[in-house]
Amino acid sequence: MDTLAGFHRTHYCGELRSSDIGKPASVCGWVQRVRNLGGLIFIDLRDRTGIVQCTFDSAENRSLSDKAFTVRSEFVLAVSGTVRSRGAGAVNSKLPTGEIELLSGELRILSRSETPPFEITEDSDVNDTLRLQYRYLDLRRADMQRTIAARHRITRCARRYYDENGFLEIETPMLTKSTPEGARDYLVPSRIHPGKFYALPQSPQQYKQLLMLAGFDRYMQITRCFRDEDLRADRQPEFTQIDLEMSFVDIDDVLAVNEGFLQTLFKEELDIDIPLPFLRMPWKEAMERFGSDKPDLRFGFELKDMTDIAAACDFKVFRSPAEEGGSVRLINVKGGGDRFSRKEIDGLAEFVKTYRAKGLAWIRLTGGAATSSFSKFMKEAETQAILARAEASDGDLVLIVADAKNEIVFAALGALRCECARRMGLLRPEDYRFLWVTEFPLLEFSEEEGRFVAVHHPFTAPMEEDLPLLDTDPGLCRAKAYDIVLNGIELGGGSIRIHSTELQDKMFQLLGFSEEDAMVRFGHLLRAFRYGAPPHGGMAYGLDRLVMLMTGKDSIRDVIAFPKVQNASEPMTGCPDVVDGKQLDELHIQISSSDSREE
Amino acid sequence: MDTLAGFHRTHYCGELRSSDIGKPASVCGWVQRVRNLGGLIFIDLRDRTGIVQCTFDSAENRSLSDKAFTVRSEFVLAVSGTVRSRGAGAVNSKLPTGEIELLSGELRILSRSETPPFEITEDSDVNDTLRLQYRYLDLRRADMQRTIAARHRITRCARRYYDENGFLEIETPMLTKSTPEGARDYLVPSRIHPGKFYALPQSPQQYKQLLMLAGFDRYMQITRCFRDEDLRADRQPEFTQIDLEMSFVDIDDVLAVNEGFLQTLFKEELDIDIPLPFLRMPWKEAMERFGSDKPDLRFGFELKDMTDIAAACDFKVFRSPAEEGGSVRLINVKGGGDRFSRKEIDGLAEFVKTYRAKGLAWIRLTGGAATSSFSKFMKEAETQAILARAEASDGDLVLIVADAKNEIVFAALGALRCECARRMGLLRPEDYRFLWVTEFPLLEFSEEEGRFVAVHHPFTAPMEEDLPLLDTDPGLCRAKAYDIVLNGIELGGGSIRIHSTELQDKMFQLLGFSEEDAMVRFGHLLRAFRYGAPPHGGMAYGLDRLVMLMTGKDSIRDVIAFPKVQNASEPMTGCPDVVDGKQLDELHIQISSSDSREE
Repeated sequence: MDTLAGFHRTHYCGELRSSDIGKPASVCGWVQRVRNLGGLIFIDLRDRTGIVQCTFDSAENRSLSDKAFTVRSEFVLAVSGTVRSRGAGAVNSKLPTGEIELLSGELRILSRSETPPFEITEDSDVNDTLRLQYRYLDLRRADMQRTIAARHRITRCARRYYDENGFLEIETPMLTKSTPEGARDYLVPSRIHPGKFYALPQSPQQYKQLLMLAGFDRYMQITRCFRDEDLRADRQPEFTQIDLEMSFVDIDDVLAVNEGFLQTLFKEELDIDIPLPFLRMPWKEAMERFGSDKPDLRFGFELKDMTDIAAACDFKVFRSPAEEGGSVRLINVKGGGDRFSRKEIDGLAEFVKTYRAKGLAWIRLTGGAATSSFSKFMKEAETQAILARAEASDGDLVLIVADAKNEIVFAALGALRCECARRMGLLRPEDYRFLWVTEFPLLEFSEEEGRFVAVHHPFTAPMEEDLPLLDTDPGLCRAKAYDIVLNGIELGGGSIRIHSTELQDKMFQLLGFSEEDAMVRFGHLLRAFRYGAPPHGGMAYGLDRLVMLMTGKDSIRDVIAFPKVQNASEPMTGCPDVVDGKQLDELHIQISSSDSREE
Repeated sequence: MDTLAGFHRTHYCGELRSSDIGKPASVCGWVQRVRNLGGLIFIDLRDRTGIVQCTFDSAENRSLSDKAFTVRSEFVLAVSGTVRSRGAGAVNSKLPTGEIELLSGELRILSRSETPPFEITEDSDVNDTLRLQYRYLDLRRADMQRTIAARHRITRCARRYYDENGFLEIETPMLTKSTPEGARDYLVPSRIHPGKFYALPQSPQQYKQLLMLAGFDRYMQITRCFRDEDLRADRQPEFTQIDLEMSFVDIDDVLAVNEGFLQTLFKEELDIDIPLPFLRMPWKEAMERFGSDKPDLRFGFELKDMTDIAAACDFKVFRSPAEEGGSVRLINVKGGGDRFSRKEIDGLAEFVKTYRAKGLAWIRLTGGAATSSFSKFMKEAETQAILARAEASDGDLVLIVADAKNEIVFAALGALRCECARRMGLLRPEDYRFLWVTEFPLLEFSEEEGRFVAVHHPFTAPMEEDLPLLDTDPGLCRAKAYDIVLNGIELGGGSIRIHSTELQDKMFQLLGFSEEDAMVRFGHLLRAFRYGAPPHGGMAYGLDRLVMLMTGKDSIRDVIAFPKVQNASEPMTGCPDVVDGKQLDELHIQISSSDSREE
């Protein structure tokens, strides 16, 4: 194998242009492909910037040409030569370097390659398992290279923006205390303290609040977080947050600085101008109009309440939910009557069942006539009342969900309106509609745990005007919490925090924590509040999701260099894996046998 | 308690100047101290930028003044008023804001404080335990604020520099595979895969090499690393590296880009011009001249070999080590003869014993006469020969260590020369002497393990000219490894990596790994080498140590917001801690009882 000794790379492959014609150039890279045409050998050489054609002419240098002949795909080469024009007939207009080639005078083979398990091209259709098993090959593909470079630029932009706005990046610990409330912790056994464990952070929440108590005023960090949950398609056991916190602020301050960030980021990375300020919408309105706490505003199809009409009709499917405290709501899919066939509407009915709706009622207006799924059961006037409520006209499709549980009606119709828009091609990815959802409920009652749990987290401040509700009807109390939503996707969220010991104590009471329990878990924070706590608040973005959205990828796996798969393993290294018994002995732990677990 | 509602902070406390006189200002912060002079109350208000004096005049506003009277240290306030001159007699020249005060018209008490366990002042002498237990108070002190801000600027500079030089920041996983070779891994039990474990990364070494194999060309990351070792004063179980890797490079390329970084960093943060290129010194020369692989070049006192003189003399303490394959070496502490008393020299003898030296021989030249610790045993000519070798003159102190083990001689004299310089006040902190130490040994024989182990790590490339030694005398083979040393402290290090499967296989053989064992541990990397590997190399800096050095701190605990203490615990949160049995059950592990450990 040749070495690099004495070789000096002058250019990246993708940089050479016709302005370089006549100049010497030395490039390094991987062989994309080799062609042999008469006495000429053409090697397409690839690096992270692109591809350049290296040409070897056997008439000029036979031994060099013979060496080039031995080259195969994915060999690693260093090539020196002179840039020359390809000539009019040979120009490849698809390549930025397509007007030139490198007439090669030196070739070093730095590394050979076996035949790779899949071709390293952007469009090669490879199954995910193979891609992840050979991730180092998958990452060679131009689109993965572009995505990882975009991720670099996005984090760079975030760091610069917050720095320019007075935020200090401060690192918080990874080996922390387990304070279970929310997701499951990843634990790390301690060798020095037998029987004790660290937890990997689910977020730096408590540390960033402590940094505010320490007077740092404005903190940010791009940091890894960990949640040991069963993975969904868009979740990873470890994920990255852009995390920030500010002192002496209320909601408007946090929102303003973050709107500035998103505006800067989208301008810089996508050259898109986003007007400020963003729309704001209270959570209750978002649910009632869009059936979702993260509404996609790129299209209409808003929810409308027809519970009053339902309560007065004889159709039991409608009337019962209305009488049982639930609701009957509709969306008007404008133009959907002409767009969707009966069979497709049946498909939509199947779709809402995945959201636990019992069924889907519909009225289709097409060719001047209305047909509906319930014409036998409803009076014509009632149907007309529904159409009036829906503001439906010819060509529309009215879809109705009724349920005794409001949350099912919201979830089903919220998802259905997006699904209809998707099928109708209304989700233009280049249309960016930002929205702050505000005034979330502070608490929700968990049937499972038989107590209130925090919707956001236990440190979120209630809205001042709702403070009296904490004593009378805590479930109605709204929080100083906010989510930033883009096209139906939650990019991040945060809240103003409680900064008074008394109010924090009250929160823990409402959450059913004993005073002792609260001190054991959160004592460090509660003690800190005693020594002068500034009003403070902040938020966190899911970086992986942000990058996914900005690079147009469908999966966060595509924006992470070495992601885990569904079962939290990494196919390339095979982790997690068994370890030496000696390692476990040192950590004072042992693997539970099924026997010992039965004890 | 008052709220911030409607209050708009216009300035940070430390920003106000006499140019602001007459203007309104609103500030927020913590009470540094309160003084009550006649009808005037003076509150020094502190935020991260400094302190401003807020003045309340009872003659102007009695109720406001009464409110100010209730304020105590570390209360959190929001104050509005008008900036006015203090008047000539009241100017505090120690404060940047000392010429002005804020005549206050509004006071909001945002949070009260109990009496803190120690005063929040820069010079308050508090023991480390208390500081770390109340870290959020400790961090309020101006010097901690400055240090954490400096750390922010240092990482910002690193990211900008490497970005401008074409490096992409790419995140590598934290939940990785345990590949023990070196330090002990922190393990994370898997819930989904019973009996299997993740390991927290000791460094991203293998991932960054895979990124080079994936064609990213230049990678950097500022990332957390983990080593479960017994802590020394300057170690933390989790620490931060500036990590980087480059493709198609040899040693000179890596060194050049990193010299540029350090020059940029020291100019930007400390306004110090560092000339390039840095001095380079092979490891062997560093050991022989300075007794250390991280020599401090701010002073002389170089080691000299006098084994030849020792071998020829009758003094057994000298002759035996010379005959047993060891050595006798000296340093000439210029001016030390006049500087150190007999008693102090005895102290130096005690000092070298901590480095396992059996004793310290010396010749002291003072007032024109030589006295020595061995005059009875050596001929005058022999002493003169030693003095000639030492190039000693009047006022000097020659210190000699003899041992059958060379490494003891080096370690003892290497440490002794620094200790003498320290005692003589020669270690000027503002004198920055950078040095590359190169040509480290590739392997060293571990008596404990009965095999060769890698000095750097098993992926380090041998020097090309030494490749034949791998077959004949591997212990003599030098590595393409380098450390960057500043004033006796290793800031970082790295190497050119092996990029050929064949050579990597050979390394694993030399390290005593079976082929199967190597594949189980490092298969992902070895397999990747088969598909075209570029020559590559890189390095990593210990960020904590770099920040410590640049901020003049004595301990890395002072440059980390929330450090661990000696026993790897965190006094503030009390982690590691016990966890619920339910958590362990889910992870399929149990704590070993002493009984079960005896089984």
